Amino acid sequence: MYQEIQLDRKGEQPLYIQLYRQLKGMIEKGVLKEYQKLPPIRQLAKILDVNNVTVVNAYKLLEKEGLVLKKVGSGTYVAPFDHKVDQKGIFVDEEIQLMNQGQMPLKQNVISFATATPDADLFPIQDVKKAINHVLDRDGGEAFGYQESMGYKPLREAFYQYLLKKNISCQIGNIQVVSGAQQGIDILAKGLLNYGDVVFTEEPTYPGAISAFKLRGAKVVSIPIRENGIDLEILKAKLAEYQPKFLYIMTAFQNPTGYTYSRETKEKLLEISSEWGLTIVEDDCLSDLYFTEKPIKPLRAMKGAEEVIYIKSFSKIFLPGFRIAFIVIPDQFIGRMMAAKHTSDISSSGLIQRTFDLLLRNGLWEKHIEGMRQIYFEKYKYFVKLLAQYLPSQVKYRVPEGGLNFWLALPDGYSSNRLYKKCLSNGVIFVPGSVFYPDRQPNQFFRLSIAAVEEEEMLKGIQILSQVIRDFLSEESNDEYLAFTPLM
Amino acid sequence: MYQEIQLDRKGEQPLYIQLYRQLKGMIEKGVLKEYQKLPPIRQLAKILDVNNVTVVNAYKLLEKEGLVLKKVGSGTYVAPFDHKVDQKGIFVDEEIQLMNQGQMPLKQNVISFATATPDADLFPIQDVKKAINHVLDRDGGEAFGYQESMGYKPLREAFYQYLLKKNISCQIGNIQVVSGAQQGIDILAKGLLNYGDVVFTEEPTYPGAISAFKLRGAKVVSIPIRENGIDLEILKAKLAEYQPKFLYIMTAFQNPTGYTYSRETKEKLLEISSEWGLTIVEDDCLSDLYFTEKPIKPLRAMKGAEEVIYIKSFSKIFLPGFRIAFIVIPDQFIGRMMAAKHTSDISSSGLIQRTFDLLLRNGLWEKHIEGMRQIYFEKYKYFVKLLAQYLPSQVKYRVPEGGLNFWLALPDGYSSNRLYKKCLSNGVIFVPGSVFYPDRQPNQFFRLSIAAVEEEEMLKGIQILSQVIRDFLSEESNDEYLAFTPLM
Repeated sequence: MYQEIQLDRKGEQPLYIQLYRQLKGMIEKGVLKEYQKLPPIRQLAKILDVNNVTVVNAYKLLEKEGLVLKKVGSGTYVAPFDHKVDQKGIFVDEEIQLMNQGQMPLKQNVISFATATPDADLFPIQDVKKAINHVLDRDGGEAFGYQESMGYKPLREAFYQYLLKKNISCQIGNIQVVSGAQQGIDILAKGLLNYGDVVFTEEPTYPGAISAFKLRGAKVVSIPIRENGIDLEILKAKLAEYQPKFLYIMTAFQNPTGYTYSRETKEKLLEISSEWGLTIVEDDCLSDLYFTEKPIKPLRAMKGAEEVIYIKSFSKIFLPGFRIAFIVIPDQFIGRMMAAKHTSDISSSGLIQRTFDLLLRNGLWEKHIEGMRQIYFEKYKYFVKLLAQYLPSQVKYRVPEGGLNFWLALPDGYSSNRLYKKCLSNGVIFVPGSVFYPDRQPNQFFRLSIAAVEEEEMLKGIQILSQVIRDFLSEESNDEYLAFTPLM
Repeated sequence: MYQEIQLDRKGEQPLYIQLYRQLKGMIEKGVLKEYQKLPPIRQLAKILDVNNVTVVNAYKLLEKEGLVLKKVGSGTYVAPFDHKVDQKGIFVDEEIQLMNQGQMPLKQNVISFATATPDADLFPIQDVKKAINHVLDRDGGEAFGYQESMGYKPLREAFYQYLLKKNISCQIGNIQVVSGAQQGIDILAKGLLNYGDVVFTEEPTYPGAISAFKLRGAKVVSIPIRENGIDLEILKAKLAEYQPKFLYIMTAFQNPTGYTYSRETKEKLLEISSEWGLTIVEDDCLSDLYFTEKPIKPLRAMKGAEEVIYIKSFSKIFLPGFRIAFIVIPDQFIGRMMAAKHTSDISSSGLIQRTFDLLLRNGLWEKHIEGMRQIYFEKYKYFVKLLAQYLPSQVKYRVPEGGLNFWLALPDGYSSNRLYKKCLSNGVIFVPGSVFYPDRQPNQFFRLSIAAVEEEEMLKGIQILSQVIRDFLSEESNDEYLAFTPLM
């Protein structure tokens, strides 16, 4: 097959580029298959009657593009394809699928504790429909034009009022509308990070944030989260070692653990932030869904937290497909963040912004959130009861004070990825813990979400899950190997 | 003022970090002003009673963050602030403003040849309203849930049908829905570019693309566009010098020049692409607005163009605020692009996608485009007449065959940025050419857009513009200096 490579010795293109292009073509067309070994350099040089260095340079280019892998002492191999393994090792198909399961309700015959988005039936369709029609009648074509890049002004004013109720003070000029929290995180990465910068996150954390930071070329250093918030001692140790551009955290009903920062942790964190000049990014997507007597106070609402970057989204409890969130940005970052937003998609949909504005102003949003809190409080209480009743005692967890997620731990050495596969074949799914760690290694944790399961399904799902776990623990413990090696 | 710096000699933090944090604070609070000189190293070390190396290290950190600038042989100065000058030198406030003018209709008392977005009144409000209500009644809460990251399936099928009419063949699995062309370009940058990669563009080109590539850390190499398309000789010369990840082009009514690639240029470009393994990205936002007898054929519709990445947006002629576009992605890039889209905003608004789907299926979209073509053909003919009648003959331009933009040139050595300021004070605006070049240097070109001016305004605007240009050319030519130096 290599004999068929045609090199034009009188052409404008250097020979090594010609060779590189042709090999690339053979790889992309599948003539050379994944993991296939390329000929040794001297051999190919001989076949083609070129210098060794021509082949070396062509292979180098292929390697640089991620098309081949060099194994020391073994040779050069065709890399697995793009659509299976990303060059940067961030995504594989399976993980996208898991993430999609976390965000999209499944319609198959599966009980999903993976989905973190409420049932579509709970959304206030009629109210939204009225609001959209009102906007269209009121604004006409304006509703379809571009908006200012920072967002539709009245909506930003409405967000400003919403923040005042939460005891968060800022100027309207500090509020940037974005197309959902994921975009907020993404423009943060774009605006604040350069290639090679360090970012601190909680461990475990939201995988969409890890991806956004890594895709920006940043190094993600993760710091364990405890039941009362991030581990401050480890944070300080890491601060002595690295100079992070910022620390990304969720202080209320953290995703995936459900943990909430104590007042003390928040106060100490602000001290550390001021002492070390550490920029904090607070992602608040669930604090409205508290099951305690009083609402949880965001970090940004505390004294001395004026420099905290605050991302507020509503997707988890109000119209995820609307794609609206906002960020409170301290003055010094506004220019960069505006540029990053403009480069990302110019502006968020005008019609959607105007509709959201109306829903906030006429109180429908608050009414809906209050309703959601009632509905999910009932679900939550029932779920807590089921876990206590059915789960094998070897599985450990802490009951969260709000939100939609429960974080559970198998005994040491058992892999939740393996458990996932067993559960899947029994018609129950959840999200394995590996997804929430920067290194994506299998571990003993997993997340159950109550967002999209009816009470009847909940009972059946927990019964199945409990039985599968029991079988899993007893089967695996027969394997002596287990006692020494964590399962993959 | 430096005497007030407090260093904790027994603290956990190294002294240089403490010093760095405090200086940073002084800069951010404005205690140290833009362009203010910091004390020489020895002097500050003496004041604070620390080693010289402590100050050196603190200054180095400040410099790395872009907070100070070091001028060799002169000292260290506070850098201009973030919200005025981006660290990477991509954006300044003024340019964002110019770009916003290109995208948002101005409501002030100004005749805007800058705005490239049609008047809101031209959008088919009633049809869209009906479609939205139909979708809400039909889909209920589903319309507000997350969509698949690649897009709402029926919409992708509708786009597939739309492509067939344009003679573009692909699989539905190759179609990725995005929130407008800008997001398409942005996820292209994210999915395909790594830090330090090279991208080829036309020169001049769309500034939103330059920004997206630069913000990704890529080097932008631009190749002049001629009246019949990109300069192929220069392209080949650059290909011998660089290995670009892709070439970004607009083949129909290019922004800003209005130029259209000839059939011959397109064929030769495809040959070059195949010979050099050059990936081509075609951005098609205006080809539907042709004023010739037959539509313009996109590059992607030609034989042998199956590997071209094709971005299709509708914003310029159909509901810009809708934020919907799509990309046709060759197989080998799908995985990376999907990951990039997911990381950017998970999915585009479900309600908007469903509404767009309906409008495409019931033919309202085609009806609207046909109407827009009629309206703009009339405007275009009138504008061509006005330019011929009023403009001083020293101003050169070529009449485009479609689209919304005209590209004009002042005589050599005259700066359109200076002309812009004079026109602004006379109530007429346009976009100066500098915005469309990667180096952003002032030049003799400028773009006039007919998107948002009524015929009456057009007449008045061109009369004013022509008079201002006449005055400008005669004033400036009195300055002998001009004959030798291009104006800035």
